[in-house]
Amino acid sequence: MLGRTSLFKYRPPVCSLPIRRLSNHPSGAVKTLKKPPNSILFVKKRNDDVVASALRDVAAHVRETYPGVQLFHEQDSNLPIGVEPWSSSDARSRPIDLIITLGGDGTILHASSLFKTGVVPPVLSFSMGTLGFLLPFNIDTFPQALDEIFTGKSEILERMRIACTFHRQDGSEMGGSANTAWQVMNEVTLHRGRSPHLNIIDAYVDGQHLTEAVSDGLILSTPTGSTAYSLSCGGPIVHPSVHSLLLTPICPRSLSFRSLVLPGSSRITLKINRGSRAPAEVSMDGQEACILQPGEFITVEASPHPVPCIKRSADLFTSRRDAEKERTIMGEKGGGDDWVRDINSLLQFNATFKNKHLATERL
Amino acid sequence: MLGRTSLFKYRPPVCSLPIRRLSNHPSGAVKTLKKPPNSILFVKKRNDDVVASALRDVAAHVRETYPGVQLFHEQDSNLPIGVEPWSSSDARSRPIDLIITLGGDGTILHASSLFKTGVVPPVLSFSMGTLGFLLPFNIDTFPQALDEIFTGKSEILERMRIACTFHRQDGSEMGGSANTAWQVMNEVTLHRGRSPHLNIIDAYVDGQHLTEAVSDGLILSTPTGSTAYSLSCGGPIVHPSVHSLLLTPICPRSLSFRSLVLPGSSRITLKINRGSRAPAEVSMDGQEACILQPGEFITVEASPHPVPCIKRSADLFTSRRDAEKERTIMGEKGGGDDWVRDINSLLQFNATFKNKHLATERL
Amino acid sequence: MLGRTSLFKYRPPVCSLPIRRLSNHPSGAVKTLKKPPNSILFVKKRNDDVVASALRDVAAHVRETYPGVQLFHEQDSNLPIGVEPWSSSDARSRPIDLIITLGGDGTILHASSLFKTGVVPPVLSFSMGTLGFLLPFNIDTFPQALDEIFTGKSEILERMRIACTFHRQDGSEMGGSANTAWQVMNEVTLHRGRSPHLNIIDAYVDGQHLTEAVSDGLILSTPTGSTAYSLSCGGPIVHPSVHSLLLTPICPRSLSFRSLVLPGSSRITLKINRGSRAPAEVSMDGQEACILQPGEFITVEASPHPVPCIKRSADLFTSRRDAEKERTIMGEKGGGDDWVRDINSLLQFNATFKNKHLATERL
Amino acid sequence: MLGRTSLFKYRPPVCSLPIRRLSNHPSGAVKTLKKPPNSILFVKKRNDDVVASALRDVAAHVRETYPGVQLFHEQDSNLPIGVEPWSSSDARSRPIDLIITLGGDGTILHASSLFKTGVVPPVLSFSMGTLGFLLPFNIDTFPQALDEIFTGKSEILERMRIACTFHRQDGSEMGGSANTAWQVMNEVTLHRGRSPHLNIIDAYVDGQHLTEAVSDGLILSTPTGSTAYSLSCGGPIVHPSVHSLLLTPICPRSLSFRSLVLPGSSRITLKINRGSRAPAEVSMDGQEACILQPGEFITVEASPHPVPCIKRSADLFTSRRDAEKERTIMGEKGGGDDWVRDINSLLQFNATFKNKHLATERL
Ligand SMILES: NC(=O)C1=CN([C@@H]2O[C@H](COP(=O)(O)OP(=O)(O)OC[C@H]3O[C@@H](n4cnc5c(N)ncnc54)[C@H](O)[C@@H]3O)[C@@H](O)[C@H]2O)C=CC1
Ligand SMILES: NC(=O)C1=CN([C@@H]2O[C@H](COP(=O)(O)OP(=O)(O)OC[C@H]3O[C@@H](n4cnc5c(N)ncnc54)[C@H](O)[C@@H]3O)[C@@H](O)[C@H]2O)C=CC1
Ligand SMILES: NC(=O)C1=CN([C@@H]2O[C@H](COP(=O)(O)OP(=O)(O)OC[C@H]3O[C@@H](n4cnc5c(N)ncnc54)[C@H](O)[C@@H]3O)[C@@H](O)[C@H]2O)C=CC1
Ligand SMILES: NC(=O)C1=CN([C@@H]2O[C@H](COP(=O)(O)OP(=O)(O)OC[C@H]3O[C@@H](n4cnc5c(N)ncnc54)[C@H](O)[C@@H]3O)[C@@H](O)[C@H]2O)C=CC1
Repeated sequence: MLGRTSLFKYRPPVCSLPIRRLSNHPSGAVKTLKKPPNSILFVKKRNDDVVASALRDVAAHVRETYPGVQLFHEQDSNLPIGVEPWSSSDARSRPIDLIITLGGDGTILHASSLFKTGVVPPVLSFSMGTLGFLLPFNIDTFPQALDEIFTGKSEILERMRIACTFHRQDGSEMGGSANTAWQVMNEVTLHRGRSPHLNIIDAYVDGQHLTEAVSDGLILSTPTGSTAYSLSCGGPIVHPSVHSLLLTPICPRSLSFRSLVLPGSSRITLKINRGSRAPAEVSMDGQEACILQPGEFITVEASPHPVPCIKRSADLFTSRRDAEKERTIMGEKGGGDDWVRDINSLLQFNATFKNKHLATERL
Repeated sequence: MLGRTSLFKYRPPVCSLPIRRLSNHPSGAVKTLKKPPNSILFVKKRNDDVVASALRDVAAHVRETYPGVQLFHEQDSNLPIGVEPWSSSDARSRPIDLIITLGGDGTILHASSLFKTGVVPPVLSFSMGTLGFLLPFNIDTFPQALDEIFTGKSEILERMRIACTFHRQDGSEMGGSANTAWQVMNEVTLHRGRSPHLNIIDAYVDGQHLTEAVSDGLILSTPTGSTAYSLSCGGPIVHPSVHSLLLTPICPRSLSFRSLVLPGSSRITLKINRGSRAPAEVSMDGQEACILQPGEFITVEASPHPVPCIKRSADLFTSRRDAEKERTIMGEKGGGDDWVRDINSLLQFNATFKNKHLATERL
Repeated sequence: MLGRTSLFKYRPPVCSLPIRRLSNHPSGAVKTLKKPPNSILFVKKRNDDVVASALRDVAAHVRETYPGVQLFHEQDSNLPIGVEPWSSSDARSRPIDLIITLGGDGTILHASSLFKTGVVPPVLSFSMGTLGFLLPFNIDTFPQALDEIFTGKSEILERMRIACTFHRQDGSEMGGSANTAWQVMNEVTLHRGRSPHLNIIDAYVDGQHLTEAVSDGLILSTPTGSTAYSLSCGGPIVHPSVHSLLLTPICPRSLSFRSLVLPGSSRITLKINRGSRAPAEVSMDGQEACILQPGEFITVEASPHPVPCIKRSADLFTSRRDAEKERTIMGEKGGGDDWVRDINSLLQFNATFKNKHLATERL
Repeated sequence: MLGRTSLFKYRPPVCSLPIRRLSNHPSGAVKTLKKPPNSILFVKKRNDDVVASALRDVAAHVRETYPGVQLFHEQDSNLPIGVEPWSSSDARSRPIDLIITLGGDGTILHASSLFKTGVVPPVLSFSMGTLGFLLPFNIDTFPQALDEIFTGKSEILERMRIACTFHRQDGSEMGGSANTAWQVMNEVTLHRGRSPHLNIIDAYVDGQHLTEAVSDGLILSTPTGSTAYSLSCGGPIVHPSVHSLLLTPICPRSLSFRSLVLPGSSRITLKINRGSRAPAEVSMDGQEACILQPGEFITVEASPHPVPCIKRSADLFTSRRDAEKERTIMGEKGGGDDWVRDINSLLQFNATFKNKHLATERL
């Protein structure tokens, strides 16, 4: 767990690569990268040989195919040839144009956390053979995926982040300065953690008292995070293009605490009630941040700095054929949404009871 | 129940009263009425003497205070003095600038249904002493409420509607013409109704197959409707400013069919599977519309014609004092949201278990 | 739908075949058939050629292998050689020692309904290649299954039924006589059915007012029925050996109506509230029974006549091998429970999210 | 948190006061105390002056009214006159005939834990002015409540306990001896506690693998505990007379993990999967017991030693009048169940949405 002060040292990095907005549709605007990246940051899962080897392959490919592109890695040992170490403190001096992650969903959450107080560069995410919610590309397709990026064909899904500030009982901000809001992709969680007792948290929306929660804790989630912890607590599945914040209770001592979907423009305050017997541990995307005592609070709102995630394009993924076929039947064309595929294949959404054939059972 | 053809005769009425957009915030833009209304349509609950008497009072007050305003009533008997009958077919010849409803939530749903294929004039809704989700004003405050409107002080909450078209197996539209989409404030419901058997419905989002639902039915709801039938089926509570469509199953034969919050820009198709043993009755805001047979489908998307609902202003409602007080504590000012009050007082949202005092119990 | 009076004509049939109780454990007592059956009633799914052909095979096998056993069929056309027609009214004159069903879960519900007012003979259920919750035997194994019965090796699971009586506003029983309680295996359902309005039902437990339900309806279910309609409405999964009654609401207008598991000894009354705008359609195991008007009520309690279901024995089912293996690991022996297998394979209970391999996805 | 070894030192105390079984009904048998108590153990909430003063009053009353009865207190300071200190280790030498608790639900859980490995004497529980689920008597009524006990009029509700043993990877029992099962009234909880990662737990029923849970944890609860933590996690409400064990997941990473109601005769094993990244903290009735590492497991079954709770009698509680009235209406007599009253008044069970009168709102 981080100490309180250590949380607030970070200065926002700069992303030099502008994103071109292709349409004016408020949510779900289609965007592409305006120009090819000059610098790439690799972020990978630790202690995994398959991932380390894949990194070497990708780095070698970039060096050969796109000479002149600077390569960085946020770890500092076992660097592949031509890749230099990089840390959050290098953000201004060594701006990043593209992040490439190799690993699981957690690797992308970690990449986002490297840019937790400012703009995030576009993220290209490779899975290592297993699907994930935030993982559009299979590692086998990396040459094509890179080609699309360098030729300006990639589309971007901006995944909302939420920005969180921590406050003392007197309202003053922990960490001192106003521009240190910590941003997360999935959620901020307040949890009783090691306390045997429930905690009491008051939730306010735009300054108005919403409710007093007596529970194991509360989750304030982005639409992206709706398929993470919030889902386990009974929350709905929210499409990443719906500009909103999701409030879901964790094991509330109440029969009537339903999930709330609040406007993306809301400012939400979660305050440990002074009568709470337990404090609340704060987790940011699953990473412990600090412990709030009674009277202390956090304030959360949509961040101005979403994560620009590069979307899978149709050609790179076989099962899109079927989607195409379906669309034709319904008399529609184009588009398609990885999200629909993912909630079905990853979450086994609405797996209807089937009177399966005994044959299957016997296999 | 309406026959199929009778549904599609309606021609959209015209609202002559423009609404001024006060800000550019995509959701929850603050709007006001640009000029005082020249014509008012009364919509009231039927067969209720208290409501009938209130209508007479309001009509008399308008005639005296705002002479020259034309008054209409969508019923044709027992009209108060100076009030003329009006029906949907009069919409073009006798445009309406303001609707005043007297009754419950159902009365507003009915007012919306009078303008189900086009623009709806702003709606001022009076409750008859009981609160309701769509009922900001208590009838006792009607002189002030009218004054605010005629002096241009009222603010408007645009409540999203969804537009629905009905299709035959070959895709052709029932009712014939493309501009007859039926619009609803709460939801479109497909339900097995009188059939003892479950039905099977395929749901598509933007032409992509989302899921096959084996259930009592499906609800496609607006945020406004999230506190109506969808809530009873386990759906989340969605703030009316979140531009989205909510898909909630009714008693699905599945352990894993969670509610989905889809982008407001989605186009959703619900098609009775050809293998479905039961047809599906379609209800629009609780009103039966038609029965879909296997192979037939509906298509739903956000309507371009929301319902402009006149919001309660702070001065007219006592309990706002408390909200004011809370905001001051949290160091915020202004605004306030009836929605927060309503989910607490009307839905008993998150009524925490209390070890109540025996004293209370004994009363 | 049945008329009210037609419901109550039935006279209870007699089962001549005593069941031997092997242990005194109140729930889950192990029982076997005391002597070989002298008469068998076939109940099969209608309009299905595969089922009709299977029936001919089974009937021929019984005639050859167990000569002297009387064979009946509750349908009266297309009877296989040596099989006579039988109807509920023959129950006294032509007692049944064993029921054999061929079809799905619905076929067993139908078999139970043939004996809806009295004792049910033991039931041997064959599935036609698809699994079902109430279907232990695959049709391919019928010679062995019959052999086990005639040699007294079969074990019996007594599935609780609930007995229901229908009452007028003045409390008098519809149908006239006290011994006409209608018994069901799954559940009694009260539903608004064709009414657009919610109904209001008062629930009483042992004469004490429990709650007033404003909803689409209520389900009063046996543990067997807990995996049927009640599950779709959010109810828990109750093991068939737990002597209890399950009350689950259907789409209640309440955030706080959780399922209740009541003692099997309870007497439950469901009464349409006099203020209810809608009546309630009563379904018994999915079969429409009657419509209750405001003031009318039903009374439900555990039936003294459960359904003796013949259990699958270990030798007849391959996948039991795995179960055996697991038990060995946990240091236990014997027994095993089809129920555990069924909730996993049929309901996909707790299908944990898996980051599936792309390989699988690609197939 | 207790160390592992300290858990297993306890030797079961003896209760000298036999309970007479009044009926043979398997669940909900009515029982009474056979003879007046010779010794009473007081258990009270700590650090509460009101409770301390009430204890002095009750102790004085018993000394005067029932001279010769030995009085004990499980705390050893501030003992009222005539009350001696007592601890679990005195259980054999100084047997207890009656426990009197003064405090909340937690005080009864604590009283049960004093007798966690053997028979528990009957418990008479006084609330200090607030209701509780396990608290039938208001402190104001203590003279009558005691009179009923000494004159043999009290009825007893036997609340099931579950007995739990802790096992190492090799199956050997922690603490060494087979008869040290720890018994709880509410539940055994396995929780990830301070770990940021989910744990993986395999659940077995009677040696058969039931499911692999990837979650924050699992709850194995008695019917009594169904209104405690399990309820917060979405579990059903189970009447205390239903002989069963309730398995409820805590925030499972699954859309399809519904609560299971298992037979009271089941033997359930919960084993930390060897692949689990996190261990599991075990809580017994909210009290931390130990931490299980991957491969370690607990085994749970119904305890032979339930908690005999003395029930509120009709005369002592005013609101019973209403219950009486209702019963008369339904044409039934007698009985009545505090449980029905409690789920309504304490849990606000099925608080139907009411369009409340503005008048109320204004108060
Ligand atoms: N009971 C639960 O469900 C809990 C869930 N979490 C979630 O874990 C996240 C942290 O993830 P890791 O660092 O990978 O921890 P982890 O290694 O413990 O894995 C958590 C799981 O969540 C998945 N996941 C992460 N983000 C997701 C998303 N947006 N949609 C769908 N699945 C997603 C991951 O693929 C992984 O399977 C937290 O942000 C929180 O949402 C954390 C604690 C408890
Ligand atoms: N099981 C259920 O919960 C069912 C609910 N309904 C709902 O009833 C609506 C029709 O309403 P009425 O014509 O008044 O029928 P109704 O007179 O049967 O009343 C339905 C109830 O819903 C309330 N309601 C309506 N719209 C609401 C909203 N947006 N938020 C919160 N509460 C709301 C009304 O105040 C009333 O209490 C439908 O649009 C549907 O949403 C319809 C059938 C079943
Ligand atoms: N929304 C829902 O889930 C609804 C469920 N039902 C259920 O259908 C039952 C009648 O069944 P059928 O005549 O076959 O009608 P059906 O042909 O409409 O099938 C209902 C489905 O329920 C399954 N089923 C039946 N009893 C079951 C049990 N005890 N456990 C698990 N699955 C079970 C059947 O295999 C079938 O897949 C009713 O007793 C009721 O429980 C009835 C209406 C709606
Ligand atoms: N998120 C949650 O709901 C959590 C609940 N708990 C529960 O707290 C219990 C321990 O209770 P305390 O020592 O008093 O801790 P506590 O002082 O933290 O209180 C827990 C609350 O649960 C209530 N309670 C206890 N047993 C109950 C029952 N059988 N039915 C209904 N309400 C009940 C108590 O009155 C109190 O309001 C545990 O056995 C566990 O069931 C423990 C942790 C989290």
